[in-house]
Amino acid sequence: MAGLMEEKVFKDPIHKYIYVQDPVIWDLINTKEFQRLRRIRQLGTSYLTFHGAEHSRFSHSLGVYEVTRKIISQFERSGYPDWPREEKLLSLCAALLHDIGHGPFSHSIEQAFHMHHEDWSCRIIQGDTEVHAVLSRISPEFPDQVASVICKNYAKPIVVSLVSSQLDADRMDYLLRDAYFTGVNYGTFDLDRILRVLRPHNGRIVVKESGMHAVEDYLMSRYQMYWQVYFHPVTRSSEIILRQIFRRAKELYAQEYNFGFMPHPLSGLFENTLTVEQYLLLDEAFIQTIFMQWTRESDGLLSDLCNRFLYRKLYKYIPLQQVDGNLLEQIKANLIRVGLQPDYHMELDFPSDLPYDVYRPGEAGEKMPILLLEGKDKYTEISRKSEIIRSISGIHMGQNQIYYPEDLLKASASMLDPEVRRFFGL
Amino acid sequence: MAGLMEEKVFKDPIHKYIYVQDPVIWDLINTKEFQRLRRIRQLGTSYLTFHGAEHSRFSHSLGVYEVTRKIISQFERSGYPDWPREEKLLSLCAALLHDIGHGPFSHSIEQAFHMHHEDWSCRIIQGDTEVHAVLSRISPEFPDQVASVICKNYAKPIVVSLVSSQLDADRMDYLLRDAYFTGVNYGTFDLDRILRVLRPHNGRIVVKESGMHAVEDYLMSRYQMYWQVYFHPVTRSSEIILRQIFRRAKELYAQEYNFGFMPHPLSGLFENTLTVEQYLLLDEAFIQTIFMQWTRESDGLLSDLCNRFLYRKLYKYIPLQQVDGNLLEQIKANLIRVGLQPDYHMELDFPSDLPYDVYRPGEAGEKMPILLLEGKDKYTEISRKSEIIRSISGIHMGQNQIYYPEDLLKASASMLDPEVRRFFGL
Amino acid sequence: MAGLMEEKVFKDPIHKYIYVQDPVIWDLINTKEFQRLRRIRQLGTSYLTFHGAEHSRFSHSLGVYEVTRKIISQFERSGYPDWPREEKLLSLCAALLHDIGHGPFSHSIEQAFHMHHEDWSCRIIQGDTEVHAVLSRISPEFPDQVASVICKNYAKPIVVSLVSSQLDADRMDYLLRDAYFTGVNYGTFDLDRILRVLRPHNGRIVVKESGMHAVEDYLMSRYQMYWQVYFHPVTRSSEIILRQIFRRAKELYAQEYNFGFMPHPLSGLFENTLTVEQYLLLDEAFIQTIFMQWTRESDGLLSDLCNRFLYRKLYKYIPLQQVDGNLLEQIKANLIRVGLQPDYHMELDFPSDLPYDVYRPGEAGEKMPILLLEGKDKYTEISRKSEIIRSISGIHMGQNQIYYPEDLLKASASMLDPEVRRFFGL
Amino acid sequence: MAGLMEEKVFKDPIHKYIYVQDPVIWDLINTKEFQRLRRIRQLGTSYLTFHGAEHSRFSHSLGVYEVTRKIISQFERSGYPDWPREEKLLSLCAALLHDIGHGPFSHSIEQAFHMHHEDWSCRIIQGDTEVHAVLSRISPEFPDQVASVICKNYAKPIVVSLVSSQLDADRMDYLLRDAYFTGVNYGTFDLDRILRVLRPHNGRIVVKESGMHAVEDYLMSRYQMYWQVYFHPVTRSSEIILRQIFRRAKELYAQEYNFGFMPHPLSGLFENTLTVEQYLLLDEAFIQTIFMQWTRESDGLLSDLCNRFLYRKLYKYIPLQQVDGNLLEQIKANLIRVGLQPDYHMELDFPSDLPYDVYRPGEAGEKMPILLLEGKDKYTEISRKSEIIRSISGIHMGQNQIYYPEDLLKASASMLDPEVRRFFGL
Repeated sequence: MAGLMEEKVFKDPIHKYIYVQDPVIWDLINTKEFQRLRRIRQLGTSYLTFHGAEHSRFSHSLGVYEVTRKIISQFERSGYPDWPREEKLLSLCAALLHDIGHGPFSHSIEQAFHMHHEDWSCRIIQGDTEVHAVLSRISPEFPDQVASVICKNYAKPIVVSLVSSQLDADRMDYLLRDAYFTGVNYGTFDLDRILRVLRPHNGRIVVKESGMHAVEDYLMSRYQMYWQVYFHPVTRSSEIILRQIFRRAKELYAQEYNFGFMPHPLSGLFENTLTVEQYLLLDEAFIQTIFMQWTRESDGLLSDLCNRFLYRKLYKYIPLQQVDGNLLEQIKANLIRVGLQPDYHMELDFPSDLPYDVYRPGEAGEKMPILLLEGKDKYTEISRKSEIIRSISGIHMGQNQIYYPEDLLKASASMLDPEVRRFFGL
Repeated sequence: MAGLMEEKVFKDPIHKYIYVQDPVIWDLINTKEFQRLRRIRQLGTSYLTFHGAEHSRFSHSLGVYEVTRKIISQFERSGYPDWPREEKLLSLCAALLHDIGHGPFSHSIEQAFHMHHEDWSCRIIQGDTEVHAVLSRISPEFPDQVASVICKNYAKPIVVSLVSSQLDADRMDYLLRDAYFTGVNYGTFDLDRILRVLRPHNGRIVVKESGMHAVEDYLMSRYQMYWQVYFHPVTRSSEIILRQIFRRAKELYAQEYNFGFMPHPLSGLFENTLTVEQYLLLDEAFIQTIFMQWTRESDGLLSDLCNRFLYRKLYKYIPLQQVDGNLLEQIKANLIRVGLQPDYHMELDFPSDLPYDVYRPGEAGEKMPILLLEGKDKYTEISRKSEIIRSISGIHMGQNQIYYPEDLLKASASMLDPEVRRFFGL
Repeated sequence: MAGLMEEKVFKDPIHKYIYVQDPVIWDLINTKEFQRLRRIRQLGTSYLTFHGAEHSRFSHSLGVYEVTRKIISQFERSGYPDWPREEKLLSLCAALLHDIGHGPFSHSIEQAFHMHHEDWSCRIIQGDTEVHAVLSRISPEFPDQVASVICKNYAKPIVVSLVSSQLDADRMDYLLRDAYFTGVNYGTFDLDRILRVLRPHNGRIVVKESGMHAVEDYLMSRYQMYWQVYFHPVTRSSEIILRQIFRRAKELYAQEYNFGFMPHPLSGLFENTLTVEQYLLLDEAFIQTIFMQWTRESDGLLSDLCNRFLYRKLYKYIPLQQVDGNLLEQIKANLIRVGLQPDYHMELDFPSDLPYDVYRPGEAGEKMPILLLEGKDKYTEISRKSEIIRSISGIHMGQNQIYYPEDLLKASASMLDPEVRRFFGL
Repeated sequence: MAGLMEEKVFKDPIHKYIYVQDPVIWDLINTKEFQRLRRIRQLGTSYLTFHGAEHSRFSHSLGVYEVTRKIISQFERSGYPDWPREEKLLSLCAALLHDIGHGPFSHSIEQAFHMHHEDWSCRIIQGDTEVHAVLSRISPEFPDQVASVICKNYAKPIVVSLVSSQLDADRMDYLLRDAYFTGVNYGTFDLDRILRVLRPHNGRIVVKESGMHAVEDYLMSRYQMYWQVYFHPVTRSSEIILRQIFRRAKELYAQEYNFGFMPHPLSGLFENTLTVEQYLLLDEAFIQTIFMQWTRESDGLLSDLCNRFLYRKLYKYIPLQQVDGNLLEQIKANLIRVGLQPDYHMELDFPSDLPYDVYRPGEAGEKMPILLLEGKDKYTEISRKSEIIRSISGIHMGQNQIYYPEDLLKASASMLDPEVRRFFGL
């Protein structure tokens, strides 16, 4: 380790203070790559639904570091033999850097351009970056180790599970932080109580048996946050607009449309040739500025979508109890009749492609489940013991919705079929 | 009024909910000009000191509206005869729109380009804008009335004082909001308690006599916020960098330097020819994107400053107990000797040009002071009654500091005079 | 109504302020009978588990009044036609007085002496009391009407359901209040959110359809409070001691034991002849003082039990997965062998006699269930729609436990059978 | 030390959890003498003003222990050489036990019977008690050492100052706790921030220079609490009634009046012969029960006063700008004329005998002042640096008031002189 340092603190609304005791952590925070996270919001477009949700991935990353530090500190104070003390710094670095590869409005941009932020995280950690330089001071292999924890293939799963499991520092911080900044108080749970029931055990982190109700409380907070915040239809509507902007711009780019504004390194994004250095220039200020300039483009569809996003003239939505294929065809035909574009002006949203998960043990791609420790060595997946958790795991779907530009339909209402008008309440 | 509407609410972390009952307010919130406030931070560069302080002027404006609504609602419930009930909607609109003219990083940009956000507020309210259109629905004069409240020359000072005085809805919201988002808890005070001691009286808003301790509490919160948040030297340092960027860019622009990036309508800012429409394109995303692109400019000073700002490589600072002219001259000479530029690489900061004020009755340009109502008709300026408030009013100055790029000085430390080295602790 | 009054407020930690606008409410609060509630704790013996839980039924009663006031105020502001506005004062009085008949350590004393606090509430409201005098000012029938709301047979069930149903002002206040004073934060839910989804409809209070998740949140808070606070085994242990003291004292009284301390009107409690006036002399100070004096009684069992209660030398407990009759018999025989009394020194606790209920629609004696309003006139009992609520309703039982004086067993451990010793871990 | 122990926790609303790591602390908490503190309220009669203020000295004592533990833990983590590590357990025991000698309604009973709770603390710690037995396990001298810390004559003032100075763990806990339970939020300050600026230095605990604003914040909270809570005239009124009850009972006892209720060991209190064992039987339940029984005494004055106290029929009050001797004489004469007793029915209250102090360095009997550490070894008493603290220190007096039974005066209003009637607003 690089040497001693006076403890530094950051004032944080969630954890009161974030304590930095290791100079490696301090230096990582001060790298260009980590500072860039200040310009990427934690909750993407949710600020259009909850105006307080302006917080950044920078804050969240510090928070994940702090929760990890607290968990390890409690393991060490209690002297649990199953915690590998030599993994502390690695765990803290991985916690701090786990989101380093996130791009602006990640979920939408990843979908539109077929990227994965985990890949970028590894490229940044392993590339020619300030982060890489700081990590290399520990050892030449250290950057690769940090990357492998983030990519979940580090040899000791206990380290991975701290940062990435159903009960990890990432989720614990974001639930509390998102609840705080949105102002909803049903996302809160008792962090200290959860920390007290965690046990390192036989290469895993498990929950002591009497901690079941604490975990129920935590999972219910998650459930409430999904319904009230993460799945909110207004947020979905703004994500749809965002994806449509990217889609339209890609189409135009492919058609060699002459963009009035195409700053460096934007074309690299369209051509899928971004270097690490170029990728790091992308942030949400950049995207918003592009959209602002594109409100002045001659392509009416693109400029309209950019206006909608920037000035929150979002698509309205109607819940679909079931999808009626005939009706949808009729709507499409009507849209075309009045000069609108079904590919853009009508979007069906099935929350199965939502980026968040409630607790669903056993599903494909699932993160490490939560295990209760019974007796000395018996584990039980928690939903087997808790009827409440079973009831959440069984809830698969958000609400299907159809999204559409109400203002445009209203303007041509007289030309629509009566059924279609009735459907849209026009 | 435009008609009835179902009550709408916004979830807000400070006031729990913000209640909108009037369609004019609802429509104002949905204008392009008001939505733009989402892209302007309430606390400028403070997020570089307090990572939670990412909240926008949009949130704050809603909050000022809500506090005003609560004050008026309490006046109406209590049936105070001195409150002019016909001024309710005007007061609410002025509260909501009082910051509509703020530009990106307002205080710094205003200083650099000699603008005033109040002027822009009036130009926006009175110009060809969506805000103007909504306000005109009330009456042709209504936009001018709103503007006159914001510019403090409306005929009824009681309306002005709601939005702009030493104890106004603006300050009440920002103290609570800034404390919440930074995470410091010494900025909180009991809003309900303050609301309960306000009285409309004879064309003014005054404080009932027994409310003195409540006001002391509020002013002490203000005092703590100034020292701990608003005057924080790290924030000052980032504002210095920001102003230096604008200054350098202006110099280069005057020298007809060929900028690699100068998007619309930036040149209008340099030439002081911005129209309202152009001004509204400015936001903090735009400024940050310009800085990001300028990190690639050939002018070394400009690109260095932009890097510093974006990646928080700020100037360090040393408190100056007193300003020693000889030492400063020697430092300047030393800076020149090692190839640095004293105009940029050394900045003295005297907090007298700070944009915030503690409570200082009687000073020039002071806002309406706080009056205690004694008996039926006697007012006393509150600092005459409260020794505590007197003690705050007497505190004039923040700490003088000298700011400088430690990294650059360190690199040339061996070439500096010993006194200068000692002064900078190198 | 008795006339106008300036609004009065009480500072309250849960609701910030409690607003009293009606002189009848003000005068009820100032009666002897209502002031007596200051000397009866809201959570009985829970303060022995959670040291903060010292709050009184006085505070809670004010809180239930305030929640009721808020619900009605929202109904009136929204102009819902199904709310009978003429019932406002009756509802507020019933809310305030709903616990007026509670005795000291109610649940235990009621069990021991076969009383019901609802009966005493009615006797107090209808007897020769200050409360009766204040209520009679409204009309001669008004005291009876208040009593009938509390006894749940008032003609308009909507009024009863405000104060007594699965989603009533009583529960809403006590969950928040008990969470606050114990310091557990999992009992909190968003009161404003719940209030916003309530609708008076067709003689009932129902929940609008989109309010389902809000109710889930509320019921989960309840569930967590039951497990973590109300069913806490240490609290159960102290209640067992309390009941044993009453039981022992009754036995001794029946045997004409000569008590060293038997102040007025204690013998009336034993003989079941208490008048209203005498009943009102009972409070928790009285009971504690009796116990303190009884620590000096010659009956060893009684004085030991009193010492245990006052100095928190409670019985320990061991969970029983299933009740093994043979083992229990063996334990009893062992207790007798070492001079202990199985009737007192071993108590099995089955939480089915717990005084609190989780949400169990359809059970005997159940309070009015929670109904979701679907469309215009269709109600659905909420557990039919929510898998989460179904999962809670299915959980019937707390943990069975055996309680015993570990200190006494330890002292005679060598004389116990090995199985018994092993069972008690001695 | 008695050996290792698994960490135990208490759930606490102020500090979230209170951590007990030493078996001596655990055993002290479980003594009879410490458990008795559950029956003594932290804020005496304040619950009659703020209904939430029911919290006990038991909770507060745990809190003082926890704050002390946190301060020491921070000193140890930071490795400050001036902290004498060997004094940890002594400091913790003294913190926990500092209030062990408090009697019921301490301030009033001490005044009435000329006792001092510090004396009783020492008698309990040094007498034949469970507390003494636990402390003696450390060493035979340990109980005396604990007593000497509490009595402020322990040889190392740094230990004393933790528990008893202007910035001690006692005040830090009670300000936060009293603010929480009363529900006023102006008593809060940032405990973590204060803890971070404390430094053990040269046998004292001082504040590092940059901590001045943190201390200002803490002292302003104290100031607000004194005005809003501790000096509240309703609380003063109830204390006056309380003292009058004790005074009247003493008079009657001296006159050999035949009390209907005089349980053990009450006569010992009147005769000033209480043993430690007897003193420990006194608690607030006992005092309230005596008062309840005394409402049935034949002495009209005594029973009236007891009724007033129990049912909160307190004396009203009128502020006295200055004391007009002639008017007071006239009032007395009037009281006698209508059969009232000036010694009881009129009480002047000068807050100079208030039990709480704001910050007043230099006054007689003052606790150790707060010192700022400037440079390496220079201390400055903080009010010399802070104008705000100077302004508080200069505020000496609460409001003088005259207290009187409005109901009794009203009943005889027609017989009073017009001036007297006018004065009382009758």
